Amino acid sequence: MLTKIDHIGIAVRSIEASIALYRDAFGLEFLGEEEVAAQGVRVAFFKIGESMIELLEPLNETGPIARFLAKNGEGVHHIAAGCEDIEAGRARMTEHQIRLLSDEPLDGAHGKLISFMHPSDTGRVLFELTQRAEPEEG
Amino acid sequence: MLTKIDHIGIAVRSIEASIALYRDAFGLEFLGEEEVAAQGVRVAFFKIGESMIELLEPLNETGPIARFLAKNGEGVHHIAAGCEDIEAGRARMTEHQIRLLSDEPLDGAHGKLISFMHPSDTGRVLFELTQRAEPEEG
Repeated sequence: MLTKIDHIGIAVRSIEASIALYRDAFGLEFLGEEEVAAQGVRVAFFKIGESMIELLEPLNETGPIARFLAKNGEGVHHIAAGCEDIEAGRARMTEHQIRLLSDEPLDGAHGKLISFMHPSDTGRVLFELTQRAEPEEG
Repeated sequence: MLTKIDHIGIAVRSIEASIALYRDAFGLEFLGEEEVAAQGVRVAFFKIGESMIELLEPLNETGPIARFLAKNGEGVHHIAAGCEDIEAGRARMTEHQIRLLSDEPLDGAHGKLISFMHPSDTGRVLFELTQRAEPEEG
């Protein structure tokens, strides 16, 4: 059902200050940055095999990443698992008593459809279901 | 340098209680269980694409996972990145001022050689370098 780790989301205070670690020390390919204004966050992606590291930097003091950093400091924020069909994935989670944090799939970075699961139902790990909106080439 | 996410290590109170989530709800293939007595932990692996989810359950009250659970509760414990050559990986981390938590590579589950990095040097994420001890078939 879940086909791969699409990305690991990591909350950071500064993407710029974190590039030395992920690009220079780890040697990962930097794939670009994007603002997701609806979530008050700037994101940067690095390729690692079939997966990505997604760095999340808050754009303001009130969004979910700003609140996460205030409470926990920097660290792993969520794990996104790829699925072929997000509606089927959502139905399967509901069938297994895993609550979803939105009534419909949301638009994520890179034009993906995403849905978060309730961490109380998944052992305190914030899991995201991710489906690419369009088939990718290459 | 880092070639893929080898696995994500998740601390749980009970592997048995967590199998419903990872195998049944997420539909991941269960790859087996193993005790790593030196670290006071029982581990279970599930395949997700080229990566794995590693569940870590404490065998006693004193090991690192027991202490992690007492402090943080269940959740993501570490991220293991695959590399071709662990000595080269260790040298590269040292060159980039990332401290390692052991003077030599350690024996991990599945006959791998592993080394943890100091989370103070990696944005509060506990990263593990992983190199398979022998080439795998299949």
